[in-house]
Amino acid sequence: MAKLTDHARELLTGPNFAFVAELMEDGWPHVSPVWVDLEGDLILVNTAVGRLKERNLRRDERVALSISPLDNPYDHVDIRGRVVRVIDGDEAVAHIDRLGKKYRGWDRYPLPEGEQRVSFLIEPISVR
Amino acid sequence: MAKLTDHARELLTGPNFAFVAELMEDGWPHVSPVWVDLEGDLILVNTAVGRLKERNLRRDERVALSISPLDNPYDHVDIRGRVVRVIDGDEAVAHIDRLGKKYRGWDRYPLPEGEQRVSFLIEPISVR
Repeated sequence: MAKLTDHARELLTGPNFAFVAELMEDGWPHVSPVWVDLEGDLILVNTAVGRLKERNLRRDERVALSISPLDNPYDHVDIRGRVVRVIDGDEAVAHIDRLGKKYRGWDRYPLPEGEQRVSFLIEPISVR
Repeated sequence: MAKLTDHARELLTGPNFAFVAELMEDGWPHVSPVWVDLEGDLILVNTAVGRLKERNLRRDERVALSISPLDNPYDHVDIRGRVVRVIDGDEAVAHIDRLGKKYRGWDRYPLPEGEQRVSFLIEPISVR
């Protein structure tokens, strides 16, 4: 496990988007922007059950992400990591509420009827 | 080859950053922000010879990228693509000059002494 730099921690706890890359079933990379936060020394990502990102992260632990301040992509931190825990149910809903508050100021995330959430905790392996 | 939507073309030709994911030698994804442009219907990425991204893109054609306006990551287009051409030498230097103009307004990219550039042309396979 790599130690996150202060700058990486600051970017991950601020309302900045992380572009998270994971692997498709055929080995191709897939990348999209997501909300993130820290959970201790692990990186928290939350998505809806059934999405491509969920299927990819459940199948293969290997991820990479790049995060930068919204107004300055030159100031980016690139992280290689590994999914070490998958969280379903109420705890995952509490996570998306927390992210909705952080990014949008919402008291509760407007969860669509029937949508289930899932969280992935990512251990950083290298930070550059 | 997938047809780029008008919105994808607009994002790719504007001064927006693309977060490009490619594959490391061990199959792990790697993602970082890069300057991009269109070259006809192909996506142009340019980097310095010797960088991780260059080694990855030469070794494995499989790439993914996510691009959005600087001020609105919610409005992102995610593309799967394949490197179909690698360009070295003067043509690659002309590309980085063009990108420096587009992103920074520079008449010439301030190429460090001894740095060689390389361009990758990426064919879009799917656009979402």
